[in-house]
Amino acid sequence: MTAALLYVKDAAQVVTVAGASGKPKTGAGMNDIGVIACGSVVVDGDTGLIVFVGSVPEAESFVRDRIQASPAVEVHTVDAAGKIVLPGLIDPHTHLVFAGTREHELEMRLQGATYMEILQQGGGILYSTAQTRKATEEQLAEQSEKRLDRFLLHGVTTVEAKSGYGLTTDDELKQLRVARRLHESHPVDIVSTFMGAHAVPAEYKTDPDEYVRIVIEEMLPKVAEEGLADFCDVFCEQGVFTVEQSERILEAGKRHGLIPKIHADEIVSFGGAELAAKVGAISADHLLKASDEGIRRMAEEGVIAVLLPGTALYLREEPARAREMIKASVAVALSTDRNPGSCPTESLPLIQNLGCLMMRMTPAEVITASTINAAHAIGRAAEIGSIEVGKKADLVLFDAPNYAYLQYNFGVNLVDTVIKNGRIVVQGGIRCDGE
Amino acid sequence: MTAALLYVKDAAQVVTVAGASGKPKTGAGMNDIGVIACGSVVVDGDTGLIVFVGSVPEAESFVRDRIQASPAVEVHTVDAAGKIVLPGLIDPHTHLVFAGTREHELEMRLQGATYMEILQQGGGILYSTAQTRKATEEQLAEQSEKRLDRFLLHGVTTVEAKSGYGLTTDDELKQLRVARRLHESHPVDIVSTFMGAHAVPAEYKTDPDEYVRIVIEEMLPKVAEEGLADFCDVFCEQGVFTVEQSERILEAGKRHGLIPKIHADEIVSFGGAELAAKVGAISADHLLKASDEGIRRMAEEGVIAVLLPGTALYLREEPARAREMIKASVAVALSTDRNPGSCPTESLPLIQNLGCLMMRMTPAEVITASTINAAHAIGRAAEIGSIEVGKKADLVLFDAPNYAYLQYNFGVNLVDTVIKNGRIVVQGGIRCDGE
Ligand SMILES: [Zn+2]
Ligand SMILES: [Zn+2]
Repeated sequence: MTAALLYVKDAAQVVTVAGASGKPKTGAGMNDIGVIACGSVVVDGDTGLIVFVGSVPEAESFVRDRIQASPAVEVHTVDAAGKIVLPGLIDPHTHLVFAGTREHELEMRLQGATYMEILQQGGGILYSTAQTRKATEEQLAEQSEKRLDRFLLHGVTTVEAKSGYGLTTDDELKQLRVARRLHESHPVDIVSTFMGAHAVPAEYKTDPDEYVRIVIEEMLPKVAEEGLADFCDVFCEQGVFTVEQSERILEAGKRHGLIPKIHADEIVSFGGAELAAKVGAISADHLLKASDEGIRRMAEEGVIAVLLPGTALYLREEPARAREMIKASVAVALSTDRNPGSCPTESLPLIQNLGCLMMRMTPAEVITASTINAAHAIGRAAEIGSIEVGKKADLVLFDAPNYAYLQYNFGVNLVDTVIKNGRIVVQGGIRCDGE
Repeated sequence: MTAALLYVKDAAQVVTVAGASGKPKTGAGMNDIGVIACGSVVVDGDTGLIVFVGSVPEAESFVRDRIQASPAVEVHTVDAAGKIVLPGLIDPHTHLVFAGTREHELEMRLQGATYMEILQQGGGILYSTAQTRKATEEQLAEQSEKRLDRFLLHGVTTVEAKSGYGLTTDDELKQLRVARRLHESHPVDIVSTFMGAHAVPAEYKTDPDEYVRIVIEEMLPKVAEEGLADFCDVFCEQGVFTVEQSERILEAGKRHGLIPKIHADEIVSFGGAELAAKVGAISADHLLKASDEGIRRMAEEGVIAVLLPGTALYLREEPARAREMIKASVAVALSTDRNPGSCPTESLPLIQNLGCLMMRMTPAEVITASTINAAHAIGRAAEIGSIEVGKKADLVLFDAPNYAYLQYNFGVNLVDTVIKNGRIVVQGGIRCDGE
């Protein structure tokens, strides 16, 4: 018997993104976002699950029936008039947990230094690694929580978070433990990925294969044993990890029950997309330089393309070929890539804007890419990513008259209300969960 | 005798942007932004003017002296620890006042239609004109005020606003009256520009010269008579107003005391920059296709380049050549171009981000471009645009440890506090002036 209902009432549009029948949306399906004009959503306040989605009059009679069946039910109404309701946004690729910031590298890059040059001089990932190693769990949690707060204010209710700034067994475990701790304490849910193979640490510069051995033989077993991650990721790139090393690490991860992900073809065309298809990765990410063959193979094997146009903007690169990928029936997701060096932003709505403006995705496609397809990219599509009866009530209300408006009034935060697990955590653009 | 002081205390940095001695900053001077590490600012609460800028200990003794001289003085302290203080941002080019929105054109453009194609089909400016003509002053004020609110939340304390969606004498005056009314009622100050020559209205399509005659002989005298604008602007572009028509309009404006501005070389290289130099315009704006000769002439004549990288992003064009302009000693300013069709954003901080990321301006240059140089571009540099004793206390506190961080943690709103004329109007990112 329901004791409380949350009634999100009279929205200009409810964008359900329903109807994918358990698979990521591809091709023209990415434009099929299930818009209900004048819609309402009803949530069971006890379970935090969606119990009704539909038109305003149907919702009225649904709520009336519930009250009749159980007169003691408390109905908490959220007025969504003039607003639109979307599934909580999902960011399927972040490096959330790290210490320190790297604004000092920005002027170097603006003067022409490349990302790889900065990395080779001990900057980049290696600088963040030094800071992260020095930080305590408490310090890491405190710094990362601020980023998580900003994500939430931008309508993001679930993020994937990778390790990879520790690069020793203890420091990698430390990062993953901080992610787990934040997952438990913060309204935003965190899904963890082990990425010990994010960079070759300075101490193994002359013997990267020895570092690969440590990742496989020392780190992976402990990560699996503590149940600290669902996924295993590798930075497969010229000058970082070879295709062969990446394959070894991802296959080892699979033996420990970790599903492969891959940082693929970001800087040069390197066979990363092809490798993702070969090892059965759930996603291949970046893909700025993915080959036609790589794209074709990803479509064949159902590898999701997680695209990161904010990183392309920040590194002054041409973005990934989203239109070709969609045409080739690759399921596309979008992400901030939130990290300290190549994309320091928490605004997934801005990344959607860039998806349209830099990659010519449509307003509907960028919504699919940040909801149901992103949920698939982190293996959570059964619970989140669309507004459907039985799914978690992770909802965002935007101060916009229709979904296209989100890509129109760009670069400003239009989030009005965020509901996480049926609980209102942001209202009027402000945190309201007392945390 | 001072009755009240506002004491902005212990900032990580006060970015004064002082030291231009009455001229816009050019060349290497654009990087000279007068940073005071560990600084404070003191404001006279009665006049709303800055009375002290300097180091923390100097500020302490300044305030102590004031209290000694006048024990009844009330000191209101704003704790700026861990934050940075900048001059209120200035947006020198907006089309703030219009009715209706144009998100429906976005998908057309993403599918490849150009801005000029949409305009020629009666969309674009002509669509907004139809909406604006239909709207009452009240409706226009209400819609425009929401945009002004968003500007303020992004740290903008002064905007220029153009007419140009009326395109009849009455409707142009209506837009300018709304701007004046908002200037009086809203914390953000508005500086007005008459831009009857924004488009040739449909009814004069076959006789644009007759429309030019109306702008010159009917509109301009009335605008001047009512004192509704400081500047006169023209969209000098292939298919809109010719160089010859633009020159006639701007010269007529000058005779009525209106200083010329010009929408120049946005879509094709058209001689707009050269015309700006010839007529002595205070600024030439857009300049995506400005010629080398045009840039050289602007530097010679001291015409400020107002660059609009958000428009370039939104229209998928290459941005203006900021680096070449700075090298050529042209003073550069930045602006949103806020308008309903080609740049619907109020985030001037995002435009600064794009100034760095798309145009390779430095973090210091984009600050100069949005403060003192923007003030010069609207003829207000004597009162605003830098933090100096005697200037208006228009200040913004950003939640950032240093000014480079503003370009690093990009695409999110880091504004914490906005002080307008010595009065706190935004605090903790929220409006707090009871409006
Ligand atoms: Zn990454
Ligand atoms: Zn304009």
